Amino acid sequence: MTKNSGPAATRRGFLKAGLAAGGALAGAGAAQAGSGDPAITEIQPWNQENGDPVDAYPYGMPIEYEKNVKRRTVYWLTADPVSSINFTPLHELDGIITPNGLCFERHHSGAAHIDPASHRLMINGLVDKPLVFTMEDLKRFPRENHVYFLECAANSGMEWRGAQLNGCQFTHGMIHNVMYTGVPLRLLLEEAGVRTNGKWILAEGADAAGMTRSIPIEKALDDCLVAFKMNGEALRKEQGYPVRLVVPGWEGNMWVKWLRRIEVGDKPWHHREETSKYTDLMADGRARRFTWVMDAKSVITNPSPQAPLTHGKGPTIITGMAWSGRGTIKRVDVTLDGGKNWHQARISGPSLDKSMHRFYFEFDWDGRPLLLQSRAIDSTGYVQPTKDELRKFRGVNSIYHNNGIQTWYVNEKGEAENVEVS
Amino acid sequence: MTKNSGPAATRRGFLKAGLAAGGALAGAGAAQAGSGDPAITEIQPWNQENGDPVDAYPYGMPIEYEKNVKRRTVYWLTADPVSSINFTPLHELDGIITPNGLCFERHHSGAAHIDPASHRLMINGLVDKPLVFTMEDLKRFPRENHVYFLECAANSGMEWRGAQLNGCQFTHGMIHNVMYTGVPLRLLLEEAGVRTNGKWILAEGADAAGMTRSIPIEKALDDCLVAFKMNGEALRKEQGYPVRLVVPGWEGNMWVKWLRRIEVGDKPWHHREETSKYTDLMADGRARRFTWVMDAKSVITNPSPQAPLTHGKGPTIITGMAWSGRGTIKRVDVTLDGGKNWHQARISGPSLDKSMHRFYFEFDWDGRPLLLQSRAIDSTGYVQPTKDELRKFRGVNSIYHNNGIQTWYVNEKGEAENVEVS
Repeated sequence: MTKNSGPAATRRGFLKAGLAAGGALAGAGAAQAGSGDPAITEIQPWNQENGDPVDAYPYGMPIEYEKNVKRRTVYWLTADPVSSINFTPLHELDGIITPNGLCFERHHSGAAHIDPASHRLMINGLVDKPLVFTMEDLKRFPRENHVYFLECAANSGMEWRGAQLNGCQFTHGMIHNVMYTGVPLRLLLEEAGVRTNGKWILAEGADAAGMTRSIPIEKALDDCLVAFKMNGEALRKEQGYPVRLVVPGWEGNMWVKWLRRIEVGDKPWHHREETSKYTDLMADGRARRFTWVMDAKSVITNPSPQAPLTHGKGPTIITGMAWSGRGTIKRVDVTLDGGKNWHQARISGPSLDKSMHRFYFEFDWDGRPLLLQSRAIDSTGYVQPTKDELRKFRGVNSIYHNNGIQTWYVNEKGEAENVEVS
Repeated sequence: MTKNSGPAATRRGFLKAGLAAGGALAGAGAAQAGSGDPAITEIQPWNQENGDPVDAYPYGMPIEYEKNVKRRTVYWLTADPVSSINFTPLHELDGIITPNGLCFERHHSGAAHIDPASHRLMINGLVDKPLVFTMEDLKRFPRENHVYFLECAANSGMEWRGAQLNGCQFTHGMIHNVMYTGVPLRLLLEEAGVRTNGKWILAEGADAAGMTRSIPIEKALDDCLVAFKMNGEALRKEQGYPVRLVVPGWEGNMWVKWLRRIEVGDKPWHHREETSKYTDLMADGRARRFTWVMDAKSVITNPSPQAPLTHGKGPTIITGMAWSGRGTIKRVDVTLDGGKNWHQARISGPSLDKSMHRFYFEFDWDGRPLLLQSRAIDSTGYVQPTKDELRKFRGVNSIYHNNGIQTWYVNEKGEAENVEVS
């Protein structure tokens, strides 16, 4: 993993950016003690009254002051909220773990409520011995723990034809990053015995949509997990309780939720979700298909349209996330001027394979407008492209796989807006 | 970080333990397809009816089938639930991340509800420039992200005089492990300017208990964080919202919640929580004090008294957690026979400094009683002791810092019980 920059290093970076932080901070609000701030001189209710007892919340929830930290939907995007999307509030989060209650949802027939005692996973098709597993059976196979990002292929899809949605929750919020516990799919396939002509699998969900996707056997035998826990506890229903497929680094639609069947076959099935959907229409009318890997991408989450700079000029922190379906993130660069000058950001926190990375860039804001962008470079050396570079090759008919550089314009008041630069 | 054992290696381990998993699993419930299992042959309601729409839960909660996965309290332990403890359900969790809603609580005047707009953090005492920070001020200093365990010094305290509580939730559940986002305390102290005679800090909470602890300046300047996020989102109120101290590897009582003041002094304050509490009474009547570090420890979470083996003999997974306040966990051993024979367990998931580690041991159970123990060895080479070894040096008057080896007796039916072996 990438070593954190030590606090000494970060402190130097902080000071280097402008005046000594102390002076700037004093101007920005940090007061000398004894200034008469009523929040200090007055006794607050919580200084003298008991709070909640330990039996108040057997399962805890966020405090009322955080009620705006929530998933949001955009009703005009889809015809019906049971076949729709909501978005992770990226601008409210930090670090690399997405709390389970805030992981975006995408389902085609609503979030199913499945009784785990009645749920089964079948493996059939080109296998020596078709098998059916109960949840208890699955938990008798060796498990692994991995943190992976899950990104919908349509994340940022509205941006192909220009800046559309004003907030990173909406432009980039179809992503989350959690620790999964599950059984390597390979162990289950080995149990059933894949025949030599078994080259593909079909993963099928148990919800009313009966979602299906074809996956090449090489990926199925590599790092796919049949997962039953996320961030330590059982999968949430909207994430496929009691069991889902984890397909690290590949588009979220393939991570079939409410997983009930794995069929082994000799060719892809060409079902709806891999033909009329999840293919990319090019300018010449032909379509790219089987574009599974989510390429390196990043976004600045703060400031952003839902999270303006409210403190005025002086020491300022830009933060965001970067990820790659091909490995780890080696470097993130940030620009304040729409790409004229790039500065290396600081990555803090574990650098794990196919997982979110958190970056920071500290600088001293002079109060003039900013044209903010971030650019991820992954462990393969791939550099996140601009939107124009993507359009040059793929036209503007696509919905999926937009990993182009995002731009926020920040005005003198610190308000941010989704814009395009050429 | 420790590389995960690849699936191939785990598979070999699984097979090595007894018969081929296939045969054993068939006996244990995994059925050949076509067996007439009604869960397969009958259409379930969730196969044909829509589930929840995407706007049903802006902040999601666990599904109703998981309602027993919750914090629990033991009322006889303390006089009043506002100065008490509840426990993390370790036997229901996997991986290394504790979900925020299940992190154990310990508070002395209840979980305070603090309005972050009215909260201030003061740094005073032996500093050049006493300072007061708003929450917004704090968020303008460089942040870091780290996963750390927090263990109450009293965790397993009831076990000093023999097996007392029947469940790892109660014997070991005063621990959790989350990713924190916060500002290194060092940066704030540098801002205020610690004088040369400043050798200690006093951390003070804003709740009605006004909890205080003395911490040596070396630790304060090393890896302490002033944290405002856990697992990506704001701290939960019961974990110190809007800001708490993080003191990696050291006893939980020092991680002052609702942090309102850091005073710099030239000697420890000897307040209540470091004299009459959080010192260890020895057999000769003297007390150990300033026993801050949480030494290497481990516990088997499954099977355990609240989580029996229900599947009968055959392939069986033992899992648990290990941690050390002095670094990472290098190895965990498991015994099935009360310590006669030890087997190296498999660690899966990130191996991070002062963070939880997850271990597994797969074997083929012959259905005879088991005497289960785990033993952690940390990166310093320290080996987790037996309870008797601890008692030899420290007597049985202690409450705190019991990191002795835990034993579960598992009978022929798979039921587990808290026992002692000598």
